[in-house]
Amino acid sequence: MAKSWATLGVDLHVEPTGTGGLRRGLTDALRDAVRTGRLAPGTRLPSSRSLAADLGVARNTVAEVYADLVAEGWLTARQGSGTRVATGVSRTPSGQPGSAVAVPAGAAPRRREPDRPRYNLIPGTPDLASFPRTEWLKAARRALTAAPSQALGYGDPRGRPELRAALAGYLSRARGVRADPDGILVCAGFSHALRILGAVLRARGARAVAVESYGLHVHWDLLTAAGLATRPLPYDELGTEPRELLEAGAVLLTPAHQFPMGTALRPDRRAGVVDWARRTGGLVLEDDYDGEFRYDRQPVGALQGLDPDHVVYLGTASKSLAPGLRLAWMVLPRSLMEECAAAKGHADSCGVLDQLTLAEFIASGAYDRHVRSARLRYRRRRDALVAALAVQAPEVRATGIAAGLHAVLRLPSGTEPSVVQAAAWQGLALHGLSFYRHEEAAADRLDALVVGYGTPPDHAWAGALDALCRVLP
Amino acid sequence: MAKSWATLGVDLHVEPTGTGGLRRGLTDALRDAVRTGRLAPGTRLPSSRSLAADLGVARNTVAEVYADLVAEGWLTARQGSGTRVATGVSRTPSGQPGSAVAVPAGAAPRRREPDRPRYNLIPGTPDLASFPRTEWLKAARRALTAAPSQALGYGDPRGRPELRAALAGYLSRARGVRADPDGILVCAGFSHALRILGAVLRARGARAVAVESYGLHVHWDLLTAAGLATRPLPYDELGTEPRELLEAGAVLLTPAHQFPMGTALRPDRRAGVVDWARRTGGLVLEDDYDGEFRYDRQPVGALQGLDPDHVVYLGTASKSLAPGLRLAWMVLPRSLMEECAAAKGHADSCGVLDQLTLAEFIASGAYDRHVRSARLRYRRRRDALVAALAVQAPEVRATGIAAGLHAVLRLPSGTEPSVVQAAAWQGLALHGLSFYRHEEAAADRLDALVVGYGTPPDHAWAGALDALCRVLP
Repeated sequence: MAKSWATLGVDLHVEPTGTGGLRRGLTDALRDAVRTGRLAPGTRLPSSRSLAADLGVARNTVAEVYADLVAEGWLTARQGSGTRVATGVSRTPSGQPGSAVAVPAGAAPRRREPDRPRYNLIPGTPDLASFPRTEWLKAARRALTAAPSQALGYGDPRGRPELRAALAGYLSRARGVRADPDGILVCAGFSHALRILGAVLRARGARAVAVESYGLHVHWDLLTAAGLATRPLPYDELGTEPRELLEAGAVLLTPAHQFPMGTALRPDRRAGVVDWARRTGGLVLEDDYDGEFRYDRQPVGALQGLDPDHVVYLGTASKSLAPGLRLAWMVLPRSLMEECAAAKGHADSCGVLDQLTLAEFIASGAYDRHVRSARLRYRRRRDALVAALAVQAPEVRATGIAAGLHAVLRLPSGTEPSVVQAAAWQGLALHGLSFYRHEEAAADRLDALVVGYGTPPDHAWAGALDALCRVLP
Repeated sequence: MAKSWATLGVDLHVEPTGTGGLRRGLTDALRDAVRTGRLAPGTRLPSSRSLAADLGVARNTVAEVYADLVAEGWLTARQGSGTRVATGVSRTPSGQPGSAVAVPAGAAPRRREPDRPRYNLIPGTPDLASFPRTEWLKAARRALTAAPSQALGYGDPRGRPELRAALAGYLSRARGVRADPDGILVCAGFSHALRILGAVLRARGARAVAVESYGLHVHWDLLTAAGLATRPLPYDELGTEPRELLEAGAVLLTPAHQFPMGTALRPDRRAGVVDWARRTGGLVLEDDYDGEFRYDRQPVGALQGLDPDHVVYLGTASKSLAPGLRLAWMVLPRSLMEECAAAKGHADSCGVLDQLTLAEFIASGAYDRHVRSARLRYRRRRDALVAALAVQAPEVRATGIAAGLHAVLRLPSGTEPSVVQAAAWQGLALHGLSFYRHEEAAADRLDALVVGYGTPPDHAWAGALDALCRVLP
């Protein structure tokens, strides 16, 4: 539907898209209006009540859209000054504000508002200030010095053999993955891997992929773009319930640490998924995005170890090192390698220098050292968060296992939108749980915040935690 | 058509595909049989006469297919021992043999044949032994030390601003490109850029792209895969004739140095292309793959300088530095940026570390120094080639301008297949001109060799040149 928003002279083309329906459609349309400069920076938006009436939608929908766009950094909200357009920021896969893109230079207003949140608590990015620059450069020097000239040419679409060998050893040791170097495909990030898998599944005749009730829209959208419907599995207090896999050709799961709910898939449910795959010939896509980071015990081994012929293991350097490396890897069943390598091709391969460097980084032990140090850093942050909650917000409970770079804070029923809005006023970028909910999820709506405690640099973490506690009920 | 090749017990599924027809179909089927191990290494193939009879195709077709696969390294040919299957190698975008892929470990035979050619004269890869490793590592250290932490996160799909700024300055100065950083999109190689452009053109409703009569099948196939037909423009002794652009939505050209014919597009024809684009709203895709390497005069400036609103400029680090970097760039008309950035998205972005390093490499002047040194190296090789021809093969003429990393050697009529075959016997990997000819090209077939003199390392060049001269008539 195209609606003219008379008070601002802006047409909003709201299309219920993909998995998100009307709310996402309105979010996209508003974001687009800001990004293209049709809504100029500094513009004051109408109240959610009057925009809702204007568009003929529920007021709650508009309020949630405003809150999401505030959290993303497109809008700012201040008590007494209403909701306004921030200076333009582009959106990245994790939903984080990036660098300015599309606001015409001439349109920049006097800056009365902070143009981006002070603290970023949106999960998806590790503490980039602790990227091991010196060790990485040393590994790069050793790797490039040792590499044969041929390594700098067009190469094997599966990736450099040095990196595949290093990963096979590491994943077997650290994650219980059954891998040999010939079964590994190096990709430019998890999204790239998922796009390849989507294309291959579709070409094999699959029409749907089962997904979790909570996850990232950007992943579901990649599957949708490949021609695959996404069907959410039920979620209960014990985690994702895989009984309803039905006729899906594959299932996308985060077994070690459900994203974002933070639970580990229970052993009987792990077995159930593998049983389903064996019985139907379906494929399990195991997204092991933060498997290295468990704080209360040794990490549970990868599901792939149970059945390497039916599980694709997906790992990434985006959480353990940095998303900017654009390096991820798939451990593929033998039967899938040829199709996946062909679907990847050469048109979007990854640079070999970072591949060689990561291989050396792993082989030299620097990766293990870095992961250990990062595990300690994030564990301390999580401990500080839990301790602060106990004192300052006893009604709020951090749920999920002690792991990863984020926590889910359960809120009193009905309070999520107002807390997200209040967080924006405190300069916090974060999302409510509803941001991660599949539109077709059957489970009851839960009120919660998803707090990515991995992203702020060390010096900012205490301030971020203080600001967070101020907005909690 | 699926044909059973009784003497070997191998089914060949020959499908006339894409732009190459029966010859490519047979090439693909045979390559596939080798790659998957159905034709075991060391297997002796039947004579071209008997396979042709078996398949019901012309003998010449089979002979050309054999010659191509010998040149690619899949087969070996030795006088007295016939044509045999080499140990398995994978094919890369430039048609060069890569590393072993799919031959089962148990199938490796006693090695009676060299498993790859001794000298590689297939164009597309520069001298990788002269990659400036030390200077590159220095730039990497400076770049990573200076980069803000945020640079390591998910970033702008257009690429790092440091690199876009450095490229805008360099391309303006060295190639006469009219660029500002906001109009540059960094890609993972030329093929990636072309895939993005193909998707955008198709989404805009284009159905066909005009191409040159000679070029790379891998590029045409990318356009075909995007749903665009490729229509070859006429080629005559003055170069590509752009009069027949007709209703094409775009034209893909190598104006500075036609690949592989080696001519520069004449000024009147350059003007004709731009006129067409202005008149019809069509788009010119300017592939400036080796624009830095001209030896007889200053390079002709980029066509894009004539009309930045109708020409997309495409450059790459694959010839000037190394394909393994997977770095290329587009300078886009303002109207195309948003669509191209969206089509690129985040799923296959390029690593930021190499982007930051290349930015520093350019800004520090190291890139200019490297290009000057490479220009001298390749110029000397070209001079040596022309001098050797004059003495040892007076019937053979190097055509095209003194530029780039390859030359076209015109051969007496009808001799191309036998010379390519003889080259394989001498351990030379190279292609005849027919390998680069568009299936629908209207021009007369010319007999010629395309000699990439850039690829061998310095110490091997003299030997490669000797071997080449031995096979010339």
